[in-house]
Amino acid sequence: MGTTQGEGPQRLPFASDYERGALPQVLERLQEVNLEPNPGYGADAHSERARALIREAAGAPEAEVSFLAGGTQANAVVIDALLAPWQGVVAADSGHVSVHEAGAIEAMGHKVIELGGEDSKLTAEAVDAACQAWEQDENREHMVMPGLVYVSQPTEYGRLYSLAELEALRAVCDARGIGLYVDGARLAYALAAPGNDVGLADLARLTDAFYVGGTKCGTLLGEAVVFPRPGTCPHFLTLVKRRGALLAKGFLVGAQFEALFEDGLYQRLGARADAQAARVARAFEEAGCELLEPQQTNQVIVALEKDQLQRLEARVEAGFWSHLADGRTAVRLATSWSSTDEEADVLVDVIRTLASK
Amino acid sequence: MGTTQGEGPQRLPFASDYERGALPQVLERLQEVNLEPNPGYGADAHSERARALIREAAGAPEAEVSFLAGGTQANAVVIDALLAPWQGVVAADSGHVSVHEAGAIEAMGHKVIELGGEDSKLTAEAVDAACQAWEQDENREHMVMPGLVYVSQPTEYGRLYSLAELEALRAVCDARGIGLYVDGARLAYALAAPGNDVGLADLARLTDAFYVGGTKCGTLLGEAVVFPRPGTCPHFLTLVKRRGALLAKGFLVGAQFEALFEDGLYQRLGARADAQAARVARAFEEAGCELLEPQQTNQVIVALEKDQLQRLEARVEAGFWSHLADGRTAVRLATSWSSTDEEADVLVDVIRTLASK
Amino acid sequence: MGTTQGEGPQRLPFASDYERGALPQVLERLQEVNLEPNPGYGADAHSERARALIREAAGAPEAEVSFLAGGTQANAVVIDALLAPWQGVVAADSGHVSVHEAGAIEAMGHKVIELGGEDSKLTAEAVDAACQAWEQDENREHMVMPGLVYVSQPTEYGRLYSLAELEALRAVCDARGIGLYVDGARLAYALAAPGNDVGLADLARLTDAFYVGGTKCGTLLGEAVVFPRPGTCPHFLTLVKRRGALLAKGFLVGAQFEALFEDGLYQRLGARADAQAARVARAFEEAGCELLEPQQTNQVIVALEKDQLQRLEARVEAGFWSHLADGRTAVRLATSWSSTDEEADVLVDVIRTLASK
Amino acid sequence: MGTTQGEGPQRLPFASDYERGALPQVLERLQEVNLEPNPGYGADAHSERARALIREAAGAPEAEVSFLAGGTQANAVVIDALLAPWQGVVAADSGHVSVHEAGAIEAMGHKVIELGGEDSKLTAEAVDAACQAWEQDENREHMVMPGLVYVSQPTEYGRLYSLAELEALRAVCDARGIGLYVDGARLAYALAAPGNDVGLADLARLTDAFYVGGTKCGTLLGEAVVFPRPGTCPHFLTLVKRRGALLAKGFLVGAQFEALFEDGLYQRLGARADAQAARVARAFEEAGCELLEPQQTNQVIVALEKDQLQRLEARVEAGFWSHLADGRTAVRLATSWSSTDEEADVLVDVIRTLASK
Repeated sequence: MGTTQGEGPQRLPFASDYERGALPQVLERLQEVNLEPNPGYGADAHSERARALIREAAGAPEAEVSFLAGGTQANAVVIDALLAPWQGVVAADSGHVSVHEAGAIEAMGHKVIELGGEDSKLTAEAVDAACQAWEQDENREHMVMPGLVYVSQPTEYGRLYSLAELEALRAVCDARGIGLYVDGARLAYALAAPGNDVGLADLARLTDAFYVGGTKCGTLLGEAVVFPRPGTCPHFLTLVKRRGALLAKGFLVGAQFEALFEDGLYQRLGARADAQAARVARAFEEAGCELLEPQQTNQVIVALEKDQLQRLEARVEAGFWSHLADGRTAVRLATSWSSTDEEADVLVDVIRTLASK
Repeated sequence: MGTTQGEGPQRLPFASDYERGALPQVLERLQEVNLEPNPGYGADAHSERARALIREAAGAPEAEVSFLAGGTQANAVVIDALLAPWQGVVAADSGHVSVHEAGAIEAMGHKVIELGGEDSKLTAEAVDAACQAWEQDENREHMVMPGLVYVSQPTEYGRLYSLAELEALRAVCDARGIGLYVDGARLAYALAAPGNDVGLADLARLTDAFYVGGTKCGTLLGEAVVFPRPGTCPHFLTLVKRRGALLAKGFLVGAQFEALFEDGLYQRLGARADAQAARVARAFEEAGCELLEPQQTNQVIVALEKDQLQRLEARVEAGFWSHLADGRTAVRLATSWSSTDEEADVLVDVIRTLASK
Repeated sequence: MGTTQGEGPQRLPFASDYERGALPQVLERLQEVNLEPNPGYGADAHSERARALIREAAGAPEAEVSFLAGGTQANAVVIDALLAPWQGVVAADSGHVSVHEAGAIEAMGHKVIELGGEDSKLTAEAVDAACQAWEQDENREHMVMPGLVYVSQPTEYGRLYSLAELEALRAVCDARGIGLYVDGARLAYALAAPGNDVGLADLARLTDAFYVGGTKCGTLLGEAVVFPRPGTCPHFLTLVKRRGALLAKGFLVGAQFEALFEDGLYQRLGARADAQAARVARAFEEAGCELLEPQQTNQVIVALEKDQLQRLEARVEAGFWSHLADGRTAVRLATSWSSTDEEADVLVDVIRTLASK
Repeated sequence: MGTTQGEGPQRLPFASDYERGALPQVLERLQEVNLEPNPGYGADAHSERARALIREAAGAPEAEVSFLAGGTQANAVVIDALLAPWQGVVAADSGHVSVHEAGAIEAMGHKVIELGGEDSKLTAEAVDAACQAWEQDENREHMVMPGLVYVSQPTEYGRLYSLAELEALRAVCDARGIGLYVDGARLAYALAAPGNDVGLADLARLTDAFYVGGTKCGTLLGEAVVFPRPGTCPHFLTLVKRRGALLAKGFLVGAQFEALFEDGLYQRLGARADAQAARVARAFEEAGCELLEPQQTNQVIVALEKDQLQRLEARVEAGFWSHLADGRTAVRLATSWSSTDEEADVLVDVIRTLASK
């Protein structure tokens, strides 16, 4: 995510949710285990305990859990592992795998079958239509078969899938005999969102795989890939290694997830950021700025006039989103586990000044 | 291309333009050289002469010419050779590489950047906008860079690019520093089309690579890949070999192209098929059937009511195209170098009966 | 295969077994079907009949048979289809996939696990040891798992596997849970060899896949890939298409194999070439030249002094093999279905002159 | 690396050099920057300063430095970036890329051209011979061209290349027009070794790319990939992203390397481990155990009788290496930046008891 370009001193860091290290509790845990000898490649007691805690939190006692470094890596390795060579992955045309992974899915040999739509979410209907179009095409053997559905919770634009929507997607996947994968890069902000009705156990029940994001949710790095049903991807460790994605010191990621899951911290940590984002969204609306997406989690996407953008940028690092046809600029502000309420207060004050025209 | 489903005896073969072997002159040439010893892998005198004839016909004395077996293979190998690993190929969303190659481009590791539009052609404006969007995006280093433009002449739907349109595409490619590649699977039907103003020399002048289609234009198999400027793709023979696309007996394809190019046969052979297609198109219109694409080359794409389709299928093999939302079926009829005027007469008679309601 | 460098007029063509087109019976068949309309992509009656004939010849009534264009292509597509992503293919270090396919297997993402040895054959013991080494290595999850055994019959150097040897390989494959694949690029010369005890039915019984070579055995091009057990590689047609290996006019290859198999021609056609090679080998021995491999099929590999090579090359096109440490050159002479006995007579005469020192 | 199997309580951790977190100074640095906002993807001031320090240490003011997560990832991405598609990488058959990366290089589409030899090092002569064999082979266009030399300093078995040896390799690479890449996973143990005469500036002068290992040399994770000459691999960040190897919080790795390089810590940190390994090696020799490799850096590879192994394993975690034909087991002990002298003392005492028979 590129940041907007103002250069004021000590600008408020709202350009993304990966601008700071780890939650203090997480970093403390790393210090505790730092000089403790642990076997490599995730075969250690911390990773094992983290796996057990995630299984428990997800109500999936047989789930297989692996720790990878980052989201694009997790997406590429898991999607490739879940697809047959003749299949592609269905995703929203705004999805991370469609736009912002530099072709990582294609580099694994698979097409991203991009579906458009009014917002950043895939509907069961659209997926079903795409599957049916393939099935009914007499040339389907010359076409990429839809083999997996990719969604992220929340979406690239911060929206939530409801439980009913995910269940509908699962029903389509079952009917068509394909898989469902949920990218949880920002899952903590979904789990803690006021309107959310999708829990970890729902993801375990409804998906073939999902990942619990760490990098954007309180760890230095690391994503916990969960296959709810054992045996889904045999030799997964070798697949991970073969893609250069196996961490030698897997215990360091394991220990961080251990800290996040041992008392439900992960499920709670997004709440403050979501609340801050709600205040930010309200401030923009009160300042007369148009929200381009309904704010549901930790992201606020707003359209600003040129002078509003300049005034904002003087004080705040925001994420560039796109140039709009009417001359306005779409900007994303992301709160995170690391945003303080003081920072949010200042941001809200800055936003209020944008209205004064 | 799947065929529609009637099973009448001796149905007329208009489902595709690759249902028969080779032009008699081409097959005779094969017989002549059949027991003549020739070195393998295209290092023979027939291939060499065919290359010289193609260079001459294209006014490109330094062009490098390679013979591959088929169109998907040629597209995959050439596009991969022309792209850097961080780049993707821009194509119409109806393009052969986008839809009907089972993900062959993605299997080489590259994204097909699909652009939609009103018809099957890419406009210079749309390509320029896609390139500009990438260049201006602050996250472009996380995105697939447009690196090559793919068009086919004629398009998947039988339309022609005008010289002005190709020149405009080239101008955009030059301005953006990217390449232009033309898929000529059905090039003979374009070259001989009444309204065509794009010759082989234009393709040589305007593209980084193009291929002269043989499989659909009179040979048993084979496509002549032309790089107008030498050195465009070093070690191309090894790239071809590495993708399993190097023919041991390259001389057999070379000899066929020798026969096609030694007296301008290639440039003439599409004329009869184009004329037949024009008659077919007119007959459909006179029968009150809607042409879904303007007929310009050897393909006619028409919408038929269910009963019309049944009556047509009883006598004619046609290519299934798609189910339309209004209940009609889109069907493609393709004439070819091998369609006789008698076959076309019967087809026109059959079409006339569709109107009788 | 590069040819040696003499330039005499009308040199005898013994550099390789793919220097001429097709057996007259095969070419006649092509002419017969040339203007007959046939559906594309192998869904035609000739391909279907050829499949039935091959199934019958191999005693494998349920076998799935596909026609591909060439050997490297067949090897790459089949090996990739039979391997899991975490597996590699075990081959002799002299094997075609190891040396002469420009990295086609690696281009599909798989390691060729090369085993050395005294000759060009893989032994059951060597394969077993490689599998055991992987199984017993505590780091095996970080290593490429042997997943398939590749052999060619005859080998790259013209040697034959005995039935007992193939059965031993199969037993090891069964014990280790991996597959066996036989490259039959020159299978006709094996089937007709005097000492051969491996028939098509043995290949069908003992392998997971094999191919019946056409390009080097009497067809213009084409290899018949056989999966003896149905369902071995689901969606194989799409895998073939995705790799650019699906022939639009598959009926042309089907018709050629139909001609080869309808009266057992394939099983007989190698006999003359094998007998010629035996005469050539004897002539070399009588001239005091060292055979580097025992002659068993249609290839003779011989070490020549510099002056012998020059004299041979003045009259004969031979295949370069390698420079030997002692200054001699290893040369391959290949007879083929197209070599006449008159050509062989002249070759033998030329060889006799090499002794005169 | 699998560990040997004893289960004694509190066994000494000598199985590998990646069993503990980070040097205290490095972890402190992470704590200092933890809540400081930093832009993502390596575009931060800590990464920038670490790059400047590495450039200075390597005497390569224009070098491009990128931070990746781990060694297999760095090898795969860099080797792919340095090779053309028709090329392979030459490596010792014991090299990490040859054996222990689960086929990661092949997964990128490239062959590892493995050269054997008496020890784990590549000689200039062997590389030159391999290049010459390719160049002189008349079939070279059908073969994988050697395009890059891969060595690691120290080697997989802990040996050092001398400056003269690296210069000879460079001379061969220059003569053949190919690249040289040095894997420095354990570079700190080479730099600090008593007999070493290869400094960072030598690597910058002699290679096309090398990486400075962090994971095994004092950081939590991370390797610094150095291209001494700018422009060697254009769009490298996108190549890294495309392979899922771009760290969102690159600043965390940057800060660790900043700590390692700001006062020469990296160049010093291996010395204690090397000295401990020397004591361990001496103890084995005094106990009558055969060292299978000369000890030069932080690894000791020793052959043990079954009972010796059992006694060792009761107290010490060692790395399994291989089963020897004579019944002994080859075992690796690795000291590291984290091994205390007290641990080494106990290890030496344990080793002494192995002699008592």
